[in-house]
Amino acid sequence: MVRLVLFGGEATVTLLLHLADFNERRWAAGFAAALPGHRVVTRADQYDPDEIDYIFIWKPKPDAFAGLKNLKAILSLGAGVDALLRNPSRPVDVPIVRFMDEDLQQRMSDYVVAQVTMHQRLITRFRRDQQARRWSQLYPAPAWDASVGIMGLGQLGLDAIKHLKVFGYKLRGWSRSAKQIEGVEVFTGTEQFEAFLNGTDILVNLLPLTPETQGILNYETFARLRRGGLDGEGPVIVNAGRGGHQKEADIVRALEDGTLKAASLDVFEVEPLPQQSPLWAMDNVYITPHIAAASSERTGVAYFSKVIRDHAAGQPLPNVIDFGRGY
Amino acid sequence: MVRLVLFGGEATVTLLLHLADFNERRWAAGFAAALPGHRVVTRADQYDPDEIDYIFIWKPKPDAFAGLKNLKAILSLGAGVDALLRNPSRPVDVPIVRFMDEDLQQRMSDYVVAQVTMHQRLITRFRRDQQARRWSQLYPAPAWDASVGIMGLGQLGLDAIKHLKVFGYKLRGWSRSAKQIEGVEVFTGTEQFEAFLNGTDILVNLLPLTPETQGILNYETFARLRRGGLDGEGPVIVNAGRGGHQKEADIVRALEDGTLKAASLDVFEVEPLPQQSPLWAMDNVYITPHIAAASSERTGVAYFSKVIRDHAAGQPLPNVIDFGRGY
Repeated sequence: MVRLVLFGGEATVTLLLHLADFNERRWAAGFAAALPGHRVVTRADQYDPDEIDYIFIWKPKPDAFAGLKNLKAILSLGAGVDALLRNPSRPVDVPIVRFMDEDLQQRMSDYVVAQVTMHQRLITRFRRDQQARRWSQLYPAPAWDASVGIMGLGQLGLDAIKHLKVFGYKLRGWSRSAKQIEGVEVFTGTEQFEAFLNGTDILVNLLPLTPETQGILNYETFARLRRGGLDGEGPVIVNAGRGGHQKEADIVRALEDGTLKAASLDVFEVEPLPQQSPLWAMDNVYITPHIAAASSERTGVAYFSKVIRDHAAGQPLPNVIDFGRGY
Repeated sequence: MVRLVLFGGEATVTLLLHLADFNERRWAAGFAAALPGHRVVTRADQYDPDEIDYIFIWKPKPDAFAGLKNLKAILSLGAGVDALLRNPSRPVDVPIVRFMDEDLQQRMSDYVVAQVTMHQRLITRFRRDQQARRWSQLYPAPAWDASVGIMGLGQLGLDAIKHLKVFGYKLRGWSRSAKQIEGVEVFTGTEQFEAFLNGTDILVNLLPLTPETQGILNYETFARLRRGGLDGEGPVIVNAGRGGHQKEADIVRALEDGTLKAASLDVFEVEPLPQQSPLWAMDNVYITPHIAAASSERTGVAYFSKVIRDHAAGQPLPNVIDFGRGY
């Protein structure tokens, strides 16, 4: 392939799309329009693996990266890269850029606030009353009486905090490294995890999945949450992170014995959630099928075509995964 | 009774409590503590009706005001005074002060935002999927794709708008008199009502109940709302106003024929909602038993004891009902 010099020194690059479950053709057309002068190919096209500079991926197959010797960067449509890091064909020294934009943050915050406010307004209690045709007045305490604990203080956690703050919730945050966030009581690392949980009525998980956070939503964690909050309808968990964070048998047990009063779950150990899971039939479990946040085609194309153009012109890559931390 | 001059010229006043459904004794103790030097009585006490200066009421009986010839003000714990205005024993020229404070606004906004975000996040669709053990992915559009129309732009409407704004919803407002609210498209009066409805996905009622607004949530109104919003799960109504605003037969009909996709109702034509109402059994109706917002004892006592102290010291009354408007 002859590399042409275009646009004041910018070289032509080739982008390969590898998108399971998504319409590759449609995304390719979007990228082609956004990257004039560059080449965009899909797995169905004829191309020389040596020519691929960037690969744009969603749920890559195990051999997705085989033969791609000249990759400059891996562009991940998903914000979570735990599965990608375990991909056996991944070239371990090629930087991974993950997607993160306002649209993705907004959708996640929409989800988080909807679940948090539903629980603060005692949805399970009032749905049960409705089913029993029972008129039983209880005035839910105002939001500022409830404490929301956010696990994970990256971009998604900070955006959720921004939205929750306006309600006056007591906000707590927990993360691996120390942070300062105005109006939030921040706890750091393993040694402060219990103190974080002790004061939390609604536990929201937005952590990345790493060996350290695997299975963190377990019975022991639930048992440490504050008792009796939310007018007696707490504690509650909201998992918008990864299925690997939660032990579903522990969630079922905690819901059955009252250690948890309700759970909103967007992710599961096995997806789709198996038909025989007891979670489906529990009226205090709010299941959504891994749809809390998504990257839209419009914003995904805009974000990654800018990444490619900037990088091809000599700019650094944004939002690069730290292989040491795993996110 | 001998009126003592206390606190730099402030006269001793007598407050009568008349609270249906509430613990009068507890409130009386709260007021007595907050009003040193003044007299607080309940209906169970001995008192001379001529001595009553203020009456603090919640759901007053028809004869509540009989014999109270020297009333200076009627203090209403409820923010809505429609029933009070129709009370046959009410002295028509005595000013009515209604309760309004940050706590009440916060609770109402908690309720409104919980309902709005639940619907924007397609709760009915995902609850139905869960009951059917169906894993069906649909990524809800972000909040900024949904338009929320607020009917009633008083203190409660403005506070709800403040909370909804942070999500980026398209905000529309409708009220009797012209207003300017930053970031909100405001419609005024009967002639702009249809235009207001035409662009609304989630209709939130926070109007006062007056002869003009009676029955405003009817089939004709619902039929004018925007079709196809909320990923096809709209339009939706949220009534946190009064039961008299809604025609429940019309709501049932609209929900059955798809003119409405869901409804969150905190108030009803008859309360408690009768056992035979079809609303109880509809899975796209979210019933709460008139608990969206309440005045807490702490804030209610603080607010009205200040009103009494200030008024006894010659200050004007706040939040006085305009008898011409009816709110």
